[in-house]
Amino acid sequence: MESKNWIDEPKNLYEPIDYILKLGGKRIRPVLTLMAADIFSADFKKALPASLAVEVFHNFTLVHDDIMDAAPLRRGKATVHEKWDTNTGILSGDAMLILAYQYFENYDPVVFQKLAKLFSRTALEVCDGQQLDVDFETRNDVTIPEYINMIRLKTSVLVAAALQMGAIVAETSEENAQLIYDFGLNLGLAFQLQDDYLDTFGDPETFGKQIAGDIIENKKTFLYLKCLAIANKEDQQKLAFFYKQKLEENSIKIAEVTRIFELYDIPTLVKEQINNYTEKAFETLEGMKIETESKQNLKNFGLWLMNRSV
Amino acid sequence: MESKNWIDEPKNLYEPIDYILKLGGKRIRPVLTLMAADIFSADFKKALPASLAVEVFHNFTLVHDDIMDAAPLRRGKATVHEKWDTNTGILSGDAMLILAYQYFENYDPVVFQKLAKLFSRTALEVCDGQQLDVDFETRNDVTIPEYINMIRLKTSVLVAAALQMGAIVAETSEENAQLIYDFGLNLGLAFQLQDDYLDTFGDPETFGKQIAGDIIENKKTFLYLKCLAIANKEDQQKLAFFYKQKLEENSIKIAEVTRIFELYDIPTLVKEQINNYTEKAFETLEGMKIETESKQNLKNFGLWLMNRSV
Repeated sequence: MESKNWIDEPKNLYEPIDYILKLGGKRIRPVLTLMAADIFSADFKKALPASLAVEVFHNFTLVHDDIMDAAPLRRGKATVHEKWDTNTGILSGDAMLILAYQYFENYDPVVFQKLAKLFSRTALEVCDGQQLDVDFETRNDVTIPEYINMIRLKTSVLVAAALQMGAIVAETSEENAQLIYDFGLNLGLAFQLQDDYLDTFGDPETFGKQIAGDIIENKKTFLYLKCLAIANKEDQQKLAFFYKQKLEENSIKIAEVTRIFELYDIPTLVKEQINNYTEKAFETLEGMKIETESKQNLKNFGLWLMNRSV
Repeated sequence: MESKNWIDEPKNLYEPIDYILKLGGKRIRPVLTLMAADIFSADFKKALPASLAVEVFHNFTLVHDDIMDAAPLRRGKATVHEKWDTNTGILSGDAMLILAYQYFENYDPVVFQKLAKLFSRTALEVCDGQQLDVDFETRNDVTIPEYINMIRLKTSVLVAAALQMGAIVAETSEENAQLIYDFGLNLGLAFQLQDDYLDTFGDPETFGKQIAGDIIENKKTFLYLKCLAIANKEDQQKLAFFYKQKLEENSIKIAEVTRIFELYDIPTLVKEQINNYTEKAFETLEGMKIETESKQNLKNFGLWLMNRSV
């Protein structure tokens, strides 16, 4: 990602693409594609184009989501629409979605079709998830199951698909491909809940994004919904009051909401949920027909993911 | 297009898609796909999914371009971002681009890959063309060849690809597929020049879009560039003066620019260009190995396209 030159003509279209793809990030999704190919006994290099497709697609969603969320920062740097403008963000994002599809052209027609089908289904689910996320901002009756469904669509399906693409490239059994998908789905839920946790309780030095962005934007995350469900009347009203406002100056709102979350032990409760989904993910590994060492590698990756601070 | 129900969950994502796809329009591109399949001896029904992909993609570009151009009207009705908001326009557009790819899943892997490859290359060219169009708005040294290249990318390649998709579905020879593409490329240029002509000189009753939108938006179309090239110093300065302004009230600007265009016989000159490209398109038909009647059908379609008022 870092060494490739993405710049082509017209420059105003491709420079933002080069910029966002070189901002770094954890590269979790492409690594999952490569790991899955390796685990199912393929040369990981064979999975490189598919892994790039996943990462370019993920960055496309970041560029468009950042416009919709009016986010100023991404990975500690200006977002594309901030550095350039909204129109540039829209069009460069569109081009990235198409560039993602083009990576599949490196495979023979049968593998190409399998990858592109999985990719289209997943990409559409991610759009559905983003729409639900937007819808939830103005709704006051979002339930925890609805929230879990939203993050499944917005985040988990891509983690799951990233893994399954490695399985498809490796041409493993249908059963293995399904199990690695289910593993990714649960891991993805744990991953997003960890993200929600870090958004409020992460270290501003390492997190990259604006701290407490979810509180500022009134995102009904698991933290908020769980707290609302268990808080007393007075604190419920306080939370609901704060989540009705969009403010210029957010320091008091952030401090108050964080205090209430801590009062009800939300950090512990979200960590429990994260562990539940991680355990579920590990259970699906049991049935998978791969070497024990490979299972351990996947587990270690999952454990690392859940203890990250970025 | 009109009878299909595009609405799915979440409604806020799919209702705008249903809205734009049912606004009508000329449906030229999908008709070209069906015509090409028919001409190369396939059942036109076989080309229906590909033709839908082309039309859904075209409408995706309209939704995103209308945001970038801040256009209030499309086909005489409110644009998606006007009726909903910019974020809805971005996300529903994204979903349409993915939905377009999904239509190719109706074909076997080899045809699927051919269609998707052509589609990705074309879609990226359309993005390049849109970026050049945006770039040209703030440049004062755009040449006529640069303009022709921009409309080739923004408009013609999709007309050409729409035809070639019909050829691919019909599994005709590579040579025929190339010739029908070249036919479409020249027809597409004539088509866009006709669009430029209608934007300024069309009948507001039938045109659908805001009349003189190109003048209001300072678009350096063929009309403007040609006029600038042949006008005397005084009129050049007048034109350049008007094309530096973005105004609230445009009636004087429109009247003055139109008067200068007419003074230099621009309507006649653009009509000549349209005829040139139409003739070039017809010439590529000569080498094609299809029935004479089919050639005549393609010609008639081209002639109709160039004499349209909408």
